[in-house]
Amino acid sequence: MLKDFKPNEPEKKEALKAEIKELRGRLCAQQQQLREAKLPVLILLEGWAAAGKGSLIKEIISEIDPRFYNVVSPAVIPESESRYPFLYPYASAIPENGKLIFLDSGWMESAVCKTLQLEISKEEYKRRIRSVNEFERQLRDGGYLLLKIFLHIDEEEQFKRLKSLSENVYTEWRVTPADLWQHREYKNFLRTYDEFMEATNDTIPWHILDGHRKKVAVRDALKLLVNMIDEALAKGRYVGEPFEEKFPLIKMPKLAEVDLSPTISDKDYKKELKDLQNRLSILHNIIYWKKIPVIIGYEGWDAAGKGGNIRRVAYPLDPRGFDVHPIASPEPHELNRQFLWRFWTRLPRSGHICIFDRTWYGRVMVERLEGFCSEKDWKRAYNEINEFERQLTDWGAVLLKFWIHIDSDTQLARFNDRQNTPEKQWKITDEDWRNREKWPQYEEAVDEMLKKTSTENAPWFIIESNDKKYARIKALKIVVEELEKACENHFKREFG
Amino acid sequence: MLKDFKPNEPEKKEALKAEIKELRGRLCAQQQQLREAKLPVLILLEGWAAAGKGSLIKEIISEIDPRFYNVVSPAVIPESESRYPFLYPYASAIPENGKLIFLDSGWMESAVCKTLQLEISKEEYKRRIRSVNEFERQLRDGGYLLLKIFLHIDEEEQFKRLKSLSENVYTEWRVTPADLWQHREYKNFLRTYDEFMEATNDTIPWHILDGHRKKVAVRDALKLLVNMIDEALAKGRYVGEPFEEKFPLIKMPKLAEVDLSPTISDKDYKKELKDLQNRLSILHNIIYWKKIPVIIGYEGWDAAGKGGNIRRVAYPLDPRGFDVHPIASPEPHELNRQFLWRFWTRLPRSGHICIFDRTWYGRVMVERLEGFCSEKDWKRAYNEINEFERQLTDWGAVLLKFWIHIDSDTQLARFNDRQNTPEKQWKITDEDWRNREKWPQYEEAVDEMLKKTSTENAPWFIIESNDKKYARIKALKIVVEELEKACENHFKREFG
Repeated sequence: MLKDFKPNEPEKKEALKAEIKELRGRLCAQQQQLREAKLPVLILLEGWAAAGKGSLIKEIISEIDPRFYNVVSPAVIPESESRYPFLYPYASAIPENGKLIFLDSGWMESAVCKTLQLEISKEEYKRRIRSVNEFERQLRDGGYLLLKIFLHIDEEEQFKRLKSLSENVYTEWRVTPADLWQHREYKNFLRTYDEFMEATNDTIPWHILDGHRKKVAVRDALKLLVNMIDEALAKGRYVGEPFEEKFPLIKMPKLAEVDLSPTISDKDYKKELKDLQNRLSILHNIIYWKKIPVIIGYEGWDAAGKGGNIRRVAYPLDPRGFDVHPIASPEPHELNRQFLWRFWTRLPRSGHICIFDRTWYGRVMVERLEGFCSEKDWKRAYNEINEFERQLTDWGAVLLKFWIHIDSDTQLARFNDRQNTPEKQWKITDEDWRNREKWPQYEEAVDEMLKKTSTENAPWFIIESNDKKYARIKALKIVVEELEKACENHFKREFG
Repeated sequence: MLKDFKPNEPEKKEALKAEIKELRGRLCAQQQQLREAKLPVLILLEGWAAAGKGSLIKEIISEIDPRFYNVVSPAVIPESESRYPFLYPYASAIPENGKLIFLDSGWMESAVCKTLQLEISKEEYKRRIRSVNEFERQLRDGGYLLLKIFLHIDEEEQFKRLKSLSENVYTEWRVTPADLWQHREYKNFLRTYDEFMEATNDTIPWHILDGHRKKVAVRDALKLLVNMIDEALAKGRYVGEPFEEKFPLIKMPKLAEVDLSPTISDKDYKKELKDLQNRLSILHNIIYWKKIPVIIGYEGWDAAGKGGNIRRVAYPLDPRGFDVHPIASPEPHELNRQFLWRFWTRLPRSGHICIFDRTWYGRVMVERLEGFCSEKDWKRAYNEINEFERQLTDWGAVLLKFWIHIDSDTQLARFNDRQNTPEKQWKITDEDWRNREKWPQYEEAVDEMLKKTSTENAPWFIIESNDKKYARIKALKIVVEELEKACENHFKREFG
């Protein structure tokens, strides 16, 4: 890594120029091939302040179509002000199929700065490294091309450049206090960058480029990029192999074993509803105040009563502090990205409650059964989802997942009722009837999902909903109890 | 307005409860009708701090499907920190067809707070009132249902409520310094709210509700909402009549009058390109530093050379400070909103440069000619666009619009070249050939567009592009000169 880095030998200017020209030409030709092959490319460019990251990007893109790429420079937001998970800015920025994104510093810069500034604990830093490895692997497995470059200059060179920037009236504002701090702490940064790169080098390797000689760096970066694209175009889109990491799981019953007989009397329902909603209303204040993020996912059979259940949970909440996201089939710009993207971008700010009406589990249910993704894709998804959810709970989110359960007869009765009641007819479509025919396949898929993704940090709750009122009370009770636990833990952490 | 407000008489509790129940039932039934009629509804709820806006919303929505509405509470961001135009947070929040949005305080709160805190000048305050009137009218004309409510409590009541919130450990954090300041300045706020409402009452009228009696306010708000929706459902979607406001216009030639013969020698091209790109590179630093927003729109004939032109302008820019937005046909979630929404949401942050490759002028070209919108829609659009662009330049944006112009023979030659050159074939589609057949209709539409929308604040520039190199230099020169002017003006304003 950096400590063993040897600077490049000087090269002949003319030869270098010719090489760069040739590589740029190849990249230009690749644009259209990438578009046709629908391959997305993410280039992560990390490196020292004043190493020349911006101008390196400029030189790489100088001849390609500006409609084809984007450059994103996510700010490193102080931990105290950040209202989203660590990976959120990067996960939100991933390119569409056929497009190219440059991240002008990204997850490494953020993690390294925060650990050196003691904004995050050692444990949290390790968790972030793990998340980064997961994130990179998920992108690769989803067919993304990733190129990770570190642009290196030594301490002396950094001093010279910062000085010269400071002395020019047009550029002095570009030298930030953070840059100066990095320069003072050069050796610390060097060691930490190195550690970070070593810890994240296995899935997608790092490439260290010499920032002292600008043209050489341009040539080397172009070569890496063009070769990576050529290789991918030759091989076709990569589809990752399924594998299962061990997550601490909670044992779930099979759906067929669930006793659907529980009911509640009208009197008890009213009383409990009022009581639980009152408690939830108070809890929401604490959640908001203490900035705890809450995510509640609803899945379940058609006509199981998800809508009415969500309404009872939402009613006591302050409408400014929660959102309900109905998840329908993805739009084109969503389909053109890794499947979790449309959930990443819908995450609540900390302190907010977000209810998903259907979730990312579509991947292992409808997408699996309707063939909207490959077998490898949905088989890989169990693990990808477990990782995603751990990233959310690592962030501090309370994450609850409800399977709203009914039996097939109850569904039939409700379908018939909808069909025969004019005001309810819009709720029932041909698709519902078609899905109903696939009940056994869905049941198998749901059983597998519950078994593989009910982790300790993000458990599934089966909500018996043959009696809708019973189901509402049960869901509300879980929400209230889990939020009470979360608030208690928060206070314990804060006040010891 | 507020100064003449008379509080409601007490009403019988039971009767009120029954009325509310009946209205909620009607609203529930309307959900599905709104969805079918694809009508979007925006409810702006303004009012005093502690008047009970949040709980009013909660009561209105308590029985409707949470997938059907959203509640948005845009923060009032201090003027010095705001990186977007005044209306940006509200324009970004407009609902999709068939959905309902509650704005828990909006453009009035923001404008009133900022004028009272002297964050904006009197002139700017007036401009904002004008923008609000334009924005509301555009939404109405585009078929949106707008309901504007002010929730009123008197000074004494506000004191009581703020006091009681402060005394409860769960709610004390809800009382903000801004609330206390409002209370101290109650009379000033009263006067300014009144003025603002009088100034924005003509297009969409205000409704002042009595916040002293919660249930009465709920009933009255529900009644207003339900009646508005019923009326709209009965009449069908409103389509506004075209009308033309006077804007100071720059006289444009007809396309047929444009002399397309200008060319540039290769030697001059190279020299000028280098010189202009150097100047632009330095200017970009100032733009970034001084936080001047820049928007450049490209329109032109197919094969006119937009892409290559954009690339020459983009090349000298710092890639972290600009974006190119290629505008294709709208996706479903974009089609389901007012036509400017997808441009509002793509505006640059101040200090950034945003290049649109095709723009909002699609409305008066392709959408007009292909019948993607009604005649009234595109005829209204000239004025709507002029207003939108004035809102952008009022914000301080430099807004340049290029028509990249070639003649029909040149287009034919370039089409044939693309067809016959394997690497270029992807650039030409059947649609291009079909569009070419409509050249005369397009020419008529472009002439009308240039005539009606070349305003002094956002002029059109016709770029003769039979010689692409000439066109690049001309466009670059305009960009450089206009940015130089903008920087000079900025310095003049700042340093006198």
